Amino acid sequence: MGSTGSIGRQTLEVIRAFPDRFRVIGLAGGMNTELLAQQIKEFHPQLVSAQLVDPLRDLLPAMDCEFSSLEGLASHPEVDLVVVATSGRAGLLPTITAIRAGKDIALANKEVLVMAGRLISSEAKQKGVKILPVDSEHSAIWQCLRDEPEGVVAQIILTASGGPLHGLSQRELATVTAEEALRHPTWQMGKKVTIDSATLMNKGMEVIEAHFLFQIPPENITVIIHPQSIVHSMVEFVDGSVKAQLSAPDMRFPIQYALCYPERLPNPQLPRLDWGNIGSLTFEPPKLDRFPCFKLALEAGRRGGTYPTVLCAADEVAVDLFLQHRIGFLDIARVVEETIDRHHNMEQPSLEEIQVADSWAREAALQIASPLEGIKKC
Amino acid sequence: MGSTGSIGRQTLEVIRAFPDRFRVIGLAGGMNTELLAQQIKEFHPQLVSAQLVDPLRDLLPAMDCEFSSLEGLASHPEVDLVVVATSGRAGLLPTITAIRAGKDIALANKEVLVMAGRLISSEAKQKGVKILPVDSEHSAIWQCLRDEPEGVVAQIILTASGGPLHGLSQRELATVTAEEALRHPTWQMGKKVTIDSATLMNKGMEVIEAHFLFQIPPENITVIIHPQSIVHSMVEFVDGSVKAQLSAPDMRFPIQYALCYPERLPNPQLPRLDWGNIGSLTFEPPKLDRFPCFKLALEAGRRGGTYPTVLCAADEVAVDLFLQHRIGFLDIARVVEETIDRHHNMEQPSLEEIQVADSWAREAALQIASPLEGIKKC
Repeated sequence: MGSTGSIGRQTLEVIRAFPDRFRVIGLAGGMNTELLAQQIKEFHPQLVSAQLVDPLRDLLPAMDCEFSSLEGLASHPEVDLVVVATSGRAGLLPTITAIRAGKDIALANKEVLVMAGRLISSEAKQKGVKILPVDSEHSAIWQCLRDEPEGVVAQIILTASGGPLHGLSQRELATVTAEEALRHPTWQMGKKVTIDSATLMNKGMEVIEAHFLFQIPPENITVIIHPQSIVHSMVEFVDGSVKAQLSAPDMRFPIQYALCYPERLPNPQLPRLDWGNIGSLTFEPPKLDRFPCFKLALEAGRRGGTYPTVLCAADEVAVDLFLQHRIGFLDIARVVEETIDRHHNMEQPSLEEIQVADSWAREAALQIASPLEGIKKC
Repeated sequence: MGSTGSIGRQTLEVIRAFPDRFRVIGLAGGMNTELLAQQIKEFHPQLVSAQLVDPLRDLLPAMDCEFSSLEGLASHPEVDLVVVATSGRAGLLPTITAIRAGKDIALANKEVLVMAGRLISSEAKQKGVKILPVDSEHSAIWQCLRDEPEGVVAQIILTASGGPLHGLSQRELATVTAEEALRHPTWQMGKKVTIDSATLMNKGMEVIEAHFLFQIPPENITVIIHPQSIVHSMVEFVDGSVKAQLSAPDMRFPIQYALCYPERLPNPQLPRLDWGNIGSLTFEPPKLDRFPCFKLALEAGRRGGTYPTVLCAADEVAVDLFLQHRIGFLDIARVVEETIDRHHNMEQPSLEEIQVADSWAREAALQIASPLEGIKKC
């Protein structure tokens, strides 16, 4: 799901490296029809889900695969593992469908767990389905936890590069452009997640994600700035010992780990760390007062119910407006905060209630953002 | 074994923290009779092995435990785990005895594995006995390898603080005193291992030890200088991912891990890493040309047979002479190298052959050192 996006393309790169190990049953791509057509030609999926069907037919007149919905792909009987590499709410329904069909999930879309973590966790548990994280931080934690007994985690230390803006003052942040915020120093990622990195919303969401993936209370998850993006996260155990996972900052590492787990396969295409030249790995506390989105995410996670859903929805709207230069960088947090403030929570929401909260929040966020757009235009 | 030494004392500190978990069946102490008497009073062992029996009886007239040989302790029916915390060759026979009696071994004495790695490994395998490393580096590797499938290690990265002398020139090294070499920047350890750290002999021995403990070819073991002694070692897997284990430099961490494995128990007495203040972790290649002992150890490990036995024996003699100010710092390597050069190797040696090689090497090393002593005195 999301084969033409950043994670989708890199997933296919990993699959290309192991032609005997993996078979692509379905591909679901976005608006980049040309790339989707190329992927279909190379990987011969049985099913395709496309946003633009006619242009794809024009490009591939002799295409011998069926068109399907995302849900059809997610529940196809030959599928063992569904890679959810969409961004925002698009991944939610297919993920639920795949879980209900008993498919393991390689989850790169963190909003899915933030929006509906409780529901996803309980349905996955009920179906005996594994949720395998495809996020460098969560993959790191997952690797560090291999075979460790239950109840031995004292603390999860989530590393954050800090994004492109961590050194800026409040004043400088007010005038940051979308182009500046998209210039991530260490990671090549999609636009949404890159802006979320710049606001630290991404890191806040990762705390919630880690909570649901590893059943660790959010108060035992600490964020630390590590600008080199080599240590992807750490686990401190009750005996005081810490394990860390490291690699060059390249999303193919966590993708391959999730695809191959519990095995590890050699892949000479992935960059190696050069220990002779690595120099310094540095760590410092985050400047949280300048990045209110982090706190908003933690707070929403702590309150639970539909608050995290609303957080995700409002953030998606606000980031989109920021990318369109319609609101300023600091307005992202304002829109999210105000949307959350107006929300009436639903405890233990059903899928339908999550969807209702999501739609409400998008509407509300747009309304809240509207006067800010005016201010910016003046 | 070695309860009054540095590792022995710290082992008893860990045991003291978990009075319901561990029972001390036997204690074997060295020349520090007063401390051994205190330990007996506190831990009430059934068996005691002492180097100085009469003074101990004087201190503990009402002592109700039996005296025993090290081998008697190592094979006592109530013993589950033998902590070998002696240094040098003293640990070899009791370790073999314990293995033959089916006891798991927590091994802090690296010379045991260097002298007789092949024999120890094969006897342990035959008896189904676990050799649990009590060395910060090997404990780190062991922790990183939890549950990882066989054959997935690309490289072991052994970290080294570099010891107190790593920054010195060849000329400065020539005049280093025992007192200077004993001033280790990060670790509190026994004298022998502290001098071995200063010559990097310790790190060379650790490569051999890692080879036997984890079945990794020595050429896949890389040493890197990490002056902070926080990352205790790392494992690079075939997929390019790296795991590291970290903690404050305190031997109670690997001791407790070995004692509690596969569990982890909270121990508030152990120092925690403070991620807000950790600053930089740095890495650089070792200056191996200035530390010939490292190369001598690798070479002896590569050649196998009785060469590593001879390396250990000659090193023990040479370090002892250096500590007595009878030879210079650089003479340690000279004595070891010359002893190895004179040695006639025995392939796949038996325990008896290892003992013969050991005795021969001690004799030879003393002879070789003798004229060096003369030179120093002139």
